[in-house]
Amino acid sequence: MSTSRVTLSTDEIPTAWFNVLPVLPTPLDPPLHPATRQPVGPDDLAPLFPMGLIAQEVSTDPWIDIPGAVLDLLTLWRPTPLVRAERLERALGTPARIYYKDESGSPAGSHKPNTAVAQAFYNRAEGIERLTTETGAGQWGTALSFACTQFGMDCTVYMVRASYEQKPYRTVLMETWGSEVIPSPVDEPGHPGSLGLAITDAVRDAAGRADTHYALGSVLNHVLLHQTIIGLEAREQLARAGERGPDVVLGCCGGGSNLGGIALPFVPDEAVRLVAAEPSSCPTLTTGRFEYDFGDSAGLTPLLPMYTLGHEFVPPPIHAGGLRYHGDAPIISNLVKAGRMEAVAYPQTATFEAAVQFANTEGKLPAPEAGHVIRAVIDEALAAKEADEERVLLFNFCGHGLLDLSAYDDYHRGRLIDA
Amino acid sequence: MSTSRVTLSTDEIPTAWFNVLPVLPTPLDPPLHPATRQPVGPDDLAPLFPMGLIAQEVSTDPWIDIPGAVLDLLTLWRPTPLVRAERLERALGTPARIYYKDESGSPAGSHKPNTAVAQAFYNRAEGIERLTTETGAGQWGTALSFACTQFGMDCTVYMVRASYEQKPYRTVLMETWGSEVIPSPVDEPGHPGSLGLAITDAVRDAAGRADTHYALGSVLNHVLLHQTIIGLEAREQLARAGERGPDVVLGCCGGGSNLGGIALPFVPDEAVRLVAAEPSSCPTLTTGRFEYDFGDSAGLTPLLPMYTLGHEFVPPPIHAGGLRYHGDAPIISNLVKAGRMEAVAYPQTATFEAAVQFANTEGKLPAPEAGHVIRAVIDEALAAKEADEERVLLFNFCGHGLLDLSAYDDYHRGRLIDA
Repeated sequence: MSTSRVTLSTDEIPTAWFNVLPVLPTPLDPPLHPATRQPVGPDDLAPLFPMGLIAQEVSTDPWIDIPGAVLDLLTLWRPTPLVRAERLERALGTPARIYYKDESGSPAGSHKPNTAVAQAFYNRAEGIERLTTETGAGQWGTALSFACTQFGMDCTVYMVRASYEQKPYRTVLMETWGSEVIPSPVDEPGHPGSLGLAITDAVRDAAGRADTHYALGSVLNHVLLHQTIIGLEAREQLARAGERGPDVVLGCCGGGSNLGGIALPFVPDEAVRLVAAEPSSCPTLTTGRFEYDFGDSAGLTPLLPMYTLGHEFVPPPIHAGGLRYHGDAPIISNLVKAGRMEAVAYPQTATFEAAVQFANTEGKLPAPEAGHVIRAVIDEALAAKEADEERVLLFNFCGHGLLDLSAYDDYHRGRLIDA
Repeated sequence: MSTSRVTLSTDEIPTAWFNVLPVLPTPLDPPLHPATRQPVGPDDLAPLFPMGLIAQEVSTDPWIDIPGAVLDLLTLWRPTPLVRAERLERALGTPARIYYKDESGSPAGSHKPNTAVAQAFYNRAEGIERLTTETGAGQWGTALSFACTQFGMDCTVYMVRASYEQKPYRTVLMETWGSEVIPSPVDEPGHPGSLGLAITDAVRDAAGRADTHYALGSVLNHVLLHQTIIGLEAREQLARAGERGPDVVLGCCGGGSNLGGIALPFVPDEAVRLVAAEPSSCPTLTTGRFEYDFGDSAGLTPLLPMYTLGHEFVPPPIHAGGLRYHGDAPIISNLVKAGRMEAVAYPQTATFEAAVQFANTEGKLPAPEAGHVIRAVIDEALAAKEADEERVLLFNFCGHGLLDLSAYDDYHRGRLIDA
């Protein structure tokens, strides 16, 4: 017997992204201009984004071809393996069959390079020489640094100051790939920062220079589009394993990109339950309001229709920095509002318990973000046990925790705080 | 075009290890008892090792079957990908074709679990409930911790004190997998320690308890045997890629396990050059003497026929902790002495230059140990350019550097010392 781990060859990588916009339960409301509150047009976005990405943001084509240069880079680590978590199943004594898509094998250690590579490509193709962005825990900044190096572009990362000071090693990795890393907020040296504030810094920088654009690691439609390669591969791999389609597809959710990546290709399959796992300290989908709100703290970005805790909300400093965002992707918000997707929230101690159980059964150490989806998966598997039902669970192992070991140290020593 | 990255499915994993002992250029001299200086027999080793491993240590069978339970665990991450480093080739402008075996995707992030899993299995099969070991930079202790968890065994890791204090995150990873980690030497609290001293601590502990054995992460014949799965997979993958056999096979060399793993299956192919890359601050193969010496500092272990700098040699604290060992595997030493394998030595700054070039072309961040083989590969590729010859280079990317970012920080800030 060998582990059920399904690999695809590099020439079996999907060659088009899946666009969920045409099949959403209700049409997506447009982003609004922050000053006029009128729908934004391509020209409004052009100072920050290339036309290639702006077109994807509103496209209603069901499939969008992946450029060859993007595929070429993605195949450095894609297709990623689909693994059946048999050891976790045995530990839980569940009749559920648990599969995870392992996105931790990318150079940056998470799913984030899937869109970083695409965004760098489209910007470079339109002559842009430099990108700015924000990063919280550092996964996104790391991914964009990697992508910019590959396309010969400069990259400046505004990093939430609390993370910048707590995680110097993340900075070293970004610097190794040639990026400049600046703690944010830039004009308030004592402030711990937030993702919303760092977005403000990055957008301000990009808006002021013609050679520079801004790149966002989540929330926007084109970002989720680029991540759908995860779910497309997973569906093919389940079929290769002789498995039926999943009963439940799960992902952790901050802005929504890794969840969207694995879940969106299954939106048309109405029998498939879709589940978002978020932190109870930043419970956007479970307790937020659905309304137009800004993407950043200062109100520079367009207003987006989404679940939000308010753009001035600063979440407690939980270790899953990638889930500390006041809003959610409009696409994810649309699905939740329509009842097509469920959401659950967990305190961080419960997510670390799940992460450690995963590490001790399946081997790999999860990122704190991934601990949230693993908590949800374990609970679903235990519910299947209670119901004595063979359910097929599919989740996204969105990143490893090798740069988050201080968080595990806090967990082992009882220093975690459940906000 | 997509990246040339050759994957094998889990059911294509090699099912037997390649035993180089029958095909060595000259017969291997036996280990000698530390007190009597007579060849050691199985009974001399039984307090420390299970009979399953002792038998492998002296077996002359050309192939040794891999137990099913070991294969089952190895397929959590094996077969590992073989990647053509086309971006590095282009950056160098070389006609050489460079392939690397990516061993960084294991749960522990290196090749070490290949033997850790096997050693835990054979010990558990003979009723042993606890293993002790030493670790330098932490790769081996991490791997054995992972393996012991999987087999329900306890594990105590004696970690070189300098690393224990510099790398708390390594300790957290081992503790997450349930291990106890103790700084070494245990009886000299102010001493920075060395691998030789930590071996002494681990052997003493194991010799004193009937439920406990000792596990070594390199040097011994059975350890190199377990690593041959790397070279066996690589040979098959080169064939799948339509590539001819390699002209040169390279690995970094501390004790010799990752180098042995990729190189030993090619020993019978006399046209294939084999190259060991070691640190110039611990130049065992390039300047050491070939003689019988102890494996540890205190002289508790059997005497082994090997290149050595003397068992009391304490190498400078370079970042590639896995290469800081006074001796070398008897198998590797045998090959070098017979002229079947070459050795080169590099100062650490040159290896970090190579590692950063790799990170900026191929994406993945190398462990400092891997920086040594990448330095050698780049030099071979430039030699091929000079000679205008299409040479096929194969090397082992033995681990990632995500837990060694402080070393890269030192490199970026000009703080590296070339001893």
